[in-house]
Amino acid sequence: MNYLNMSKSELTQQLEQLQAEYKKYQDMGLKLDMSRGKPGAEQLNLSEGLLKTIVSNDDCKTADGLDCRNYGVLTGIPEIKEMFAELLGVEENEIMVGGNSSLNMMFDAVSAMMTANVNGGTPWAKLDKVKWLCPAPGYDRHFGITEYFGIEMITVPMTPQGPDMDMVEELVSNDSSIKGIWCVPKYSNPQGITYSDETVTRFAKLKPAADDFRIIWDNAYAIHDIAQQGDTLLNIMEECKKYGNEDLPIIFASTSKITFPGAGVACMAASDKNMKFFLKKYTIQTIGYDKLNMLRHVKFFGNYQGLLDHMQKHRAVLEPRFKAVTDKLDAELSGLGIAQWVNPKGGYFVSVDVLEGCAKRVVQLCKDAGVVLTGAGATYPYGKDPKDSNIRLAPTLPPVEELEIAMNLFCLSTKIAALEKLTK
Amino acid sequence: MNYLNMSKSELTQQLEQLQAEYKKYQDMGLKLDMSRGKPGAEQLNLSEGLLKTIVSNDDCKTADGLDCRNYGVLTGIPEIKEMFAELLGVEENEIMVGGNSSLNMMFDAVSAMMTANVNGGTPWAKLDKVKWLCPAPGYDRHFGITEYFGIEMITVPMTPQGPDMDMVEELVSNDSSIKGIWCVPKYSNPQGITYSDETVTRFAKLKPAADDFRIIWDNAYAIHDIAQQGDTLLNIMEECKKYGNEDLPIIFASTSKITFPGAGVACMAASDKNMKFFLKKYTIQTIGYDKLNMLRHVKFFGNYQGLLDHMQKHRAVLEPRFKAVTDKLDAELSGLGIAQWVNPKGGYFVSVDVLEGCAKRVVQLCKDAGVVLTGAGATYPYGKDPKDSNIRLAPTLPPVEELEIAMNLFCLSTKIAALEKLTK
Repeated sequence: MNYLNMSKSELTQQLEQLQAEYKKYQDMGLKLDMSRGKPGAEQLNLSEGLLKTIVSNDDCKTADGLDCRNYGVLTGIPEIKEMFAELLGVEENEIMVGGNSSLNMMFDAVSAMMTANVNGGTPWAKLDKVKWLCPAPGYDRHFGITEYFGIEMITVPMTPQGPDMDMVEELVSNDSSIKGIWCVPKYSNPQGITYSDETVTRFAKLKPAADDFRIIWDNAYAIHDIAQQGDTLLNIMEECKKYGNEDLPIIFASTSKITFPGAGVACMAASDKNMKFFLKKYTIQTIGYDKLNMLRHVKFFGNYQGLLDHMQKHRAVLEPRFKAVTDKLDAELSGLGIAQWVNPKGGYFVSVDVLEGCAKRVVQLCKDAGVVLTGAGATYPYGKDPKDSNIRLAPTLPPVEELEIAMNLFCLSTKIAALEKLTK
Repeated sequence: MNYLNMSKSELTQQLEQLQAEYKKYQDMGLKLDMSRGKPGAEQLNLSEGLLKTIVSNDDCKTADGLDCRNYGVLTGIPEIKEMFAELLGVEENEIMVGGNSSLNMMFDAVSAMMTANVNGGTPWAKLDKVKWLCPAPGYDRHFGITEYFGIEMITVPMTPQGPDMDMVEELVSNDSSIKGIWCVPKYSNPQGITYSDETVTRFAKLKPAADDFRIIWDNAYAIHDIAQQGDTLLNIMEECKKYGNEDLPIIFASTSKITFPGAGVACMAASDKNMKFFLKKYTIQTIGYDKLNMLRHVKFFGNYQGLLDHMQKHRAVLEPRFKAVTDKLDAELSGLGIAQWVNPKGGYFVSVDVLEGCAKRVVQLCKDAGVVLTGAGATYPYGKDPKDSNIRLAPTLPPVEELEIAMNLFCLSTKIAALEKLTK
């Protein structure tokens, strides 16, 4: 029953039928939120032990005797640097541990490069034009940072292997005003795509026209599998070192979706040269970040294996939620010719491409019946999806029962929007 | 026995005697640190209760039901905003709560004004020349921020009533390239001076040539009395509002020296217009700061009175330390004509002006005998004290017994340096 092969009268009949069904949802007074990648209460409860690790004056020291309550240690306590180094496959001296937000560290990194140049050249804020590559669909908050700083964003299409590397190579090697690219290389936001080995290697081999070009490698979902057998991502730092390109990537991660989104620990990894540049700023910016919270995390996990074990508990909570979403998509939308999606093996989102020109309408229909989705267009630079097609679903927060209701409404809305367009 | 009235042979004899004494200190193998305003272990232990306030999944909610473990609430939880508003004498909607460091918030504020203009004009990063007023002696980390951003620093002398306001008014009203001033208005770092009512009022009445001129009002020691009867500071925001100048001040504070320096909570206060400007950035920069730590603080103090009561415990710890320092200064250096200081009623430092041209030598002599002081010059822009005279003593970290030894050495070194100069 592909909508694209149906006659106008069949479509109209179908639309009327679904509108009646939609009315019922409107009457249910729903109030559900699938808009943000926000862990649910069950996930937060997994980290209760974190709250109990430091409860007396005697719990506050690192292995080497540093009192985490006091000032000192700019780049983070050794124990947590070791853990993050293992997580990201870099050296400990390539790690800087920050506050509770990797987004904040990325903002700070771009901000630092706006007012000082990583290679000693002209700070970007003094240039007439700075451009940035934005694989899309992508993470709205990344695009928000470059937009905030007045950086011109160029959309690069995503493929199932990652960003379109032909286009990336072409642009980066010819235009010295292109200074960076946003990447979520594993379980990309929103599509859940993991960059292929070839993609990572091509990134590592880039020969940018701008010597201050940097890859922002936001490894937000490094160990966030949903499937039993998750994806693997090639180590960007190792690859870059092979080609003498270790200054290209600046890597980020956090425990926001491992322990607490509001009270986790974030980190950055970069080459010696890049780190020297950023530490020049951090030395001035702060005396140091919250070391008690770093120590809490280390005590809670014990070691890196403890961290991985903890992620299995998240997987147990999330797997049924993602299944609820993709099962509904399969049952309701497959074969209709009006929607495409990929079942992700990890991450926090399911990305659905609805019929061109229908995304805004779908989001509106859902909203009018009480289900909030991420705004249509949010996954593109400037909030403008040229095809008005991509919608990001965030299945983590609502319980499965609610998700199923929300997904019924989403599929219904997707059909209605398509039928409205096809019968116009 | 004023050194300045002694004959050369008397001075030489005195010097030889003191050098012998200094040798003994060198042989003691001391290893003491009076360099930074770092609370001692006794002070840190006062906040053990903070560690025990959130130890289960049930402790994590604000009064209005917000789960502090999760994402959400950019400007801070209502309870802590209320507490900071009371601390700073501003409205709750004028408060933004940040991470663990007010220094970081100040850095961010200046950084924000570098890349965007608070009044919609040209961002400072695009101007050829930006200047800043630096009351000195002052806080080295303030000067570090303006130096980092390439802002030209102009020294304004401190008087017992605060910065020389004749000079401030003259400069600010005539030079539109002057965009700001650093202020520690209560128990100033390092002198412990509290700005007089007249000084605060003159700040509030400023008519800057630059419409984007801002006063960075770092109220770091707002409730940090050492004397039983502390100083009082006029409310800058209230004063500014009287003259329609509420956009002038940007106010900062933190609990770094109330609870834990490494894991406290910082805040900023500003007018609606300024806050709108900064929130535009914060919205992009982060999803929100560590709300669990905010909630911990609220639960620990109970209310603002609890915060004030807690400060009395700090006072009990600090008062003997400051007394040890000023008693030694009185006993060893008064009447010699080679050193001046003020006994501060609060704050974290004692500032000593030694004989002109001798500060570096005094710090070196102390260091060579195992006592680290703040580097001479650090209290001036660019680390250059034009008179090479000011030394900042930080009495909080070492126990009283150690302080007394360190102060003996300091006084001895001050005498030796003076005698070396006078016998040259």
